Amino acid sequence: MPNPIELAPWRSPLSRALHRNRSQMHCRFFQLATVTPEGLPTNRTVVFRGFVEQTNYLKIITDRRSQKIEHLASHNQAEIAWYFTKTREQFRLAGTIEMVNADDLESDFFQERQQTWETISDSARSQFAWPSPTAQRNINSDDFNVETSSSKSPLDSFVLLIFQPHTVDHLELRGNPQNRFIYKLSSSQEWKNTEVNP
Amino acid sequence: MPNPIELAPWRSPLSRALHRNRSQMHCRFFQLATVTPEGLPTNRTVVFRGFVEQTNYLKIITDRRSQKIEHLASHNQAEIAWYFTKTREQFRLAGTIEMVNADDLESDFFQERQQTWETISDSARSQFAWPSPTAQRNINSDDFNVETSSSKSPLDSFVLLIFQPHTVDHLELRGNPQNRFIYKLSSSQEWKNTEVNP
Repeated sequence: MPNPIELAPWRSPLSRALHRNRSQMHCRFFQLATVTPEGLPTNRTVVFRGFVEQTNYLKIITDRRSQKIEHLASHNQAEIAWYFTKTREQFRLAGTIEMVNADDLESDFFQERQQTWETISDSARSQFAWPSPTAQRNINSDDFNVETSSSKSPLDSFVLLIFQPHTVDHLELRGNPQNRFIYKLSSSQEWKNTEVNP
Repeated sequence: MPNPIELAPWRSPLSRALHRNRSQMHCRFFQLATVTPEGLPTNRTVVFRGFVEQTNYLKIITDRRSQKIEHLASHNQAEIAWYFTKTREQFRLAGTIEMVNADDLESDFFQERQQTWETISDSARSQFAWPSPTAQRNINSDDFNVETSSSKSPLDSFVLLIFQPHTVDHLELRGNPQNRFIYKLSSSQEWKNTEVNP
């Protein structure tokens, strides 16, 4: 595991946003932009699976057969746009993504992959045994009726993504004028905060 | 103006989603991914300003001083991720963006820019007279108290973006299993629809 570090200064406003919007399940959904091997932008909604303890790294899970895996293999940079509908504020997080697969035994996050598998719901787990995403639709609905156990090793298709932010842009639309703060991780791994025009 | 065309087949499920989610103001917000000149993904929440009449083109407005203008000048490709929280469905729209500026007198969409300026709220218009976005915060709050008129020409900082989709990926999370449809615009400008695995 990486050394324990101090919580970044953007963790406090982000925790506050998660708390204030907690009545809305979708407050844990955000949009993840990546780039294809050809350099084209792509974007999709994913679920926030919490932070890796003692770090500022966000966890996301995905299917090894999904297109974003191919994108991340060629460009490991990504940007999250996370809009909180109740409090009307946005966090944009730019950073790099480390993929943790079944055969990444040497990864700092190999245990984290196992633990994350155990915490997700039965229905979330079963999706990793579904037929290939974006392939022509399987007609037999039994193909989607599969059970997977939390106590076993995660399926090979289960990939843990570790998002490691280097820039966070926090915009509060409710202020008049609006408030905007940019946090940047310096080369000495310190977070610097600037207040900017919205 | 381009020739009037038939509504694309994804317009009907999108209209239905907008209708069913209309009680939530944020149903008109989506996330727009672009690529920086250096090839890095970027992502932010923007507001859907309707379709250009008689076309399948979506309207977005932005400030000429915003970073996405620089991104789009180098790569005009973008992808929208549009998640509807009430009906739990996502539309991903990939396409190209045409920018319409104050000096684009020859643009097919020059009048559309004027008309869109007239339809937005006073507070939305005034933001185009605010100090430069992402510059160090202006201390004088009077700098943000500006009035702009709908009857005058749009401010030079006002840019209309015309998003022209070529691929639409519609995912309905509520099905069991989920439903997913991919629409692609062929080289003969026809939309083809395929049902795929979620």
